[in-house]
Amino acid sequence: MRDAYVIGAGQTDFGSFPNESYRSMFREAFDATRESVDSTVDTDDIDEAFVGMVGIGGRQIGLAGPGATSHLGLNGISTVRLENACASGGFAVRQAVQAVRSGMADVVLAGGIELMNDMSSDAAKYWFGVSGEMEWERMAGTTFSGVFAQMASAHMAEYETTREHLSQISVKSHAYGADNPHAQLGFECSLDQAMSAPDVAAPLNLYHCCPMSDGAATALIVSEDVVDQYTDQPVRVAGVGASSGGIGLFERDTYTSIPATKEAREKAYAEADIENPVESLDFAEVHDCFSIAELIAYEDLGFCAPGEGGTFIAEGHPEPDGDLPVNTSGGLKSKGHPIGATGTGQVVEAFKQLTGRAGDRQLDSPRRGLCHNMGGSGGAVTVHVLERVDSEVSA
Amino acid sequence: MRDAYVIGAGQTDFGSFPNESYRSMFREAFDATRESVDSTVDTDDIDEAFVGMVGIGGRQIGLAGPGATSHLGLNGISTVRLENACASGGFAVRQAVQAVRSGMADVVLAGGIELMNDMSSDAAKYWFGVSGEMEWERMAGTTFSGVFAQMASAHMAEYETTREHLSQISVKSHAYGADNPHAQLGFECSLDQAMSAPDVAAPLNLYHCCPMSDGAATALIVSEDVVDQYTDQPVRVAGVGASSGGIGLFERDTYTSIPATKEAREKAYAEADIENPVESLDFAEVHDCFSIAELIAYEDLGFCAPGEGGTFIAEGHPEPDGDLPVNTSGGLKSKGHPIGATGTGQVVEAFKQLTGRAGDRQLDSPRRGLCHNMGGSGGAVTVHVLERVDSEVSA
Repeated sequence: MRDAYVIGAGQTDFGSFPNESYRSMFREAFDATRESVDSTVDTDDIDEAFVGMVGIGGRQIGLAGPGATSHLGLNGISTVRLENACASGGFAVRQAVQAVRSGMADVVLAGGIELMNDMSSDAAKYWFGVSGEMEWERMAGTTFSGVFAQMASAHMAEYETTREHLSQISVKSHAYGADNPHAQLGFECSLDQAMSAPDVAAPLNLYHCCPMSDGAATALIVSEDVVDQYTDQPVRVAGVGASSGGIGLFERDTYTSIPATKEAREKAYAEADIENPVESLDFAEVHDCFSIAELIAYEDLGFCAPGEGGTFIAEGHPEPDGDLPVNTSGGLKSKGHPIGATGTGQVVEAFKQLTGRAGDRQLDSPRRGLCHNMGGSGGAVTVHVLERVDSEVSA
Repeated sequence: MRDAYVIGAGQTDFGSFPNESYRSMFREAFDATRESVDSTVDTDDIDEAFVGMVGIGGRQIGLAGPGATSHLGLNGISTVRLENACASGGFAVRQAVQAVRSGMADVVLAGGIELMNDMSSDAAKYWFGVSGEMEWERMAGTTFSGVFAQMASAHMAEYETTREHLSQISVKSHAYGADNPHAQLGFECSLDQAMSAPDVAAPLNLYHCCPMSDGAATALIVSEDVVDQYTDQPVRVAGVGASSGGIGLFERDTYTSIPATKEAREKAYAEADIENPVESLDFAEVHDCFSIAELIAYEDLGFCAPGEGGTFIAEGHPEPDGDLPVNTSGGLKSKGHPIGATGTGQVVEAFKQLTGRAGDRQLDSPRRGLCHNMGGSGGAVTVHVLERVDSEVSA
C-alpha cells in the first residue's frame, strides 16, 4: 500500500455565520488549505474529493459534496458526501487515505462542512437528535445530551469520577482555545464557572457541553509518489483506524466505554506501531462533544486505565506541561463543533502543530499526534496518527 | 491495483412497505445477497461496508450506515453512509471497489436503502427537492420533475425528439419489468397509455416519471486474492468511473447532455478497454428517473450520437431483440426507485443476468453489462462495467 501524506490543511473560523452558505465556507477553508501548502496546488491536480457533512443545516442536503467541490472549480472528478454523524469529517480523511492507497488517486481533497445555526432552535434540536439512535432512543424521548448524561452518571457510579473532573477538562480546553483565533468560544473559564453553570442534562452542565457551530475544514492528502512536488515538510499518515457498532446505548454491553474507539485505536496503533500512546504521542485531539466523552476517550485510547480518566485530568497529564497535551485547539468545547467539519478540523490542528504553525499554543517540536473523531454516542469512530517527516530523513 | 469481483448480490422487493424499517429492509437484502453466493460468507469475513442512503425517510438519518450494518451483526468494522442523491448506491459500489484495490479490505459490503413512503406527501415533495440544487433552483420554485421537464423541452427543441420517443422508452421498461418479481410497477403498459397519461411537468407525463419507492439492495465485492474461496462463477468489475459537477442546470453549458455521465463513462470504458459500447456490451442498466434521462443516457454513454436518442429507441436497439437491451430489470420506471438503493440494485440485475439467474427476462448468455447511476439532475454519476469470468479462463 502506498503511503499517504497531508501536505496542507486549513479551516474557517468556527462560530455563528448567518450570512455564509455551505459553498462559501467550504471555499474559505479550501483557500486556507492551499495557502498552507509550500508550493502551488492547481485545482486540476486534484483527483477526487470526500466531503463530510451531516446536512442538518445549510439548506443543501442531497449532492452537497459535488455542490461544494464544483463551487471550487473541481468538476469531472469523483466527489461524494460522507456521513457518520459527528465523525463525518474523520471518515472523509480516512477515505481520502484509502483512495491514495488504492492507486486510483494521487491528490485527494478531504473536507467537512456544517452550518448549524441556519435553522430554528426547534429544528436544531430535532436534527441534532438524529445523530443518536432514532427508532428506539430518540423517539422514546431521549435527547442527545441525555444520552451522554447517562454515560456520565454510569461512569460516576462505577468509578471515582466527579463533576469536578468534568469541569477541569472544560477549564483546560478553554485555556487552550483562548489561544486559538479560530475558536468559537475562545475565552478562558474558571473552575468555579465550570462547576456552577446551569444544568443541561444532569450531571452535565452548560460548561460540559460543546456549542452549535458553523464552519468548514479541509485537508489535502497525497501519495508518496507526488508528495515531494508539493512540500519538503510532509506530514505522514502513520496510521488510520475506523470502526462502527450499535448506534444506540441499548445495543452495547457498557455505558462507560465506547467499543468503536477501542477497535479504531487498535487498527491505527498497529499501523503506526504504537504500544504506549502516552510515550509515543506528543499530543492528541480527541472528541469532546461533552466533557464526559473526553474523559472516556482518555481510557478508550489507552492514555490511562479504565476508570482512571478522572485521575488523568486531575494529575494534569493533558495540560500544556503534562505528558500528553489534549485538545490544544480548544477541542469541540471551546474551538466549536460544526459537526461535519470537526474530524477534518482536528487534522488541521495536528498539521499546524506538526509543522510549527500553531501560534501561541504551539507545542515544543511535536513529532506525532493523534486525532480521534466520534459519531453520535459512539456508533462510528476514526483514529488517525500523523507524524512529521523531516526532509533529511525522507530524502 | 488488485482486481475486484462481485460474488453475490440481492435485493428486497421495491414498493411501498409501511411496516418495514431501514434495518429490516437492509437485512432482507443482505440475506438475499448471502444466499446468492455459492459458498458461505460469514459476517466475520466482512472487512468494511459502504451504505448509500439519502435519508429522506426511514427516520434514521445520522449514522444510518452503522445502524444498518450493526443490525446484521457487523460490528468493529469501518462502515460509512455515502450520499450523492440518487447515485448514492452506485457510489457505495464504487467505494467498495476502491477499498478492495487499496489493499485495506478483502471482502466489502456495498449497499443502499431508502424508505420514501414513510412520510407525508408534503415532506416527500420537500425532501425529493433536496436532490436538486437548493439555494438557486429549488428555492426559486423549481420542482425536481420541473428540472427534467426543462431538459426534455430543450432536447425536443434542439433535436427531433418527441413525446412518443419518451413513451416508447416507458413501454419498453414496463414490458421488461413485468417479468421482474421484485418490480414495484411490474405491469405492461401500452403506447396509448404512455402517451395519454396526465401531465406531471409538461412535456413529462405520469408514464415518463418513476415512482416513490421503499427498498434495499446489497452486493458483496471481494479481492482477487479471496474470490476463489467464495465462487467459481465470479463477476469481475472490469471498469469503474465516477464523476461530478455542477448540481444545478444553471451551472452547465448544456441542458441536453450530462457532462458527468460522459466523464464517468470515459474512465470506465478506459479501464474496461471499451471503444464501441454497443458492440462490447450485452446489456445496460441506465438511470431513468424520467424517460428523458434514459434517452439522454443513450447519447452520453455513447450508445448513439448526440441527438439520436429518439431514433435509438424508435429503431428498437434497447428492446429485448435489439443490439443492446436496456433496463431489463424494468429500470427505475417499472422496477422502482428507492433512491439510495437504486445504484446497488442495478448491480443486482447485472449480477443476475451475468450468472443466469434473471428468470423470465434472462438474456442469452450475456458476458458484459453496464450500470449507470445518476444523482440529482446530473451532479454525480457512476458507471460500472461488469463481466462474467468463466472459471476455466480465470483458473
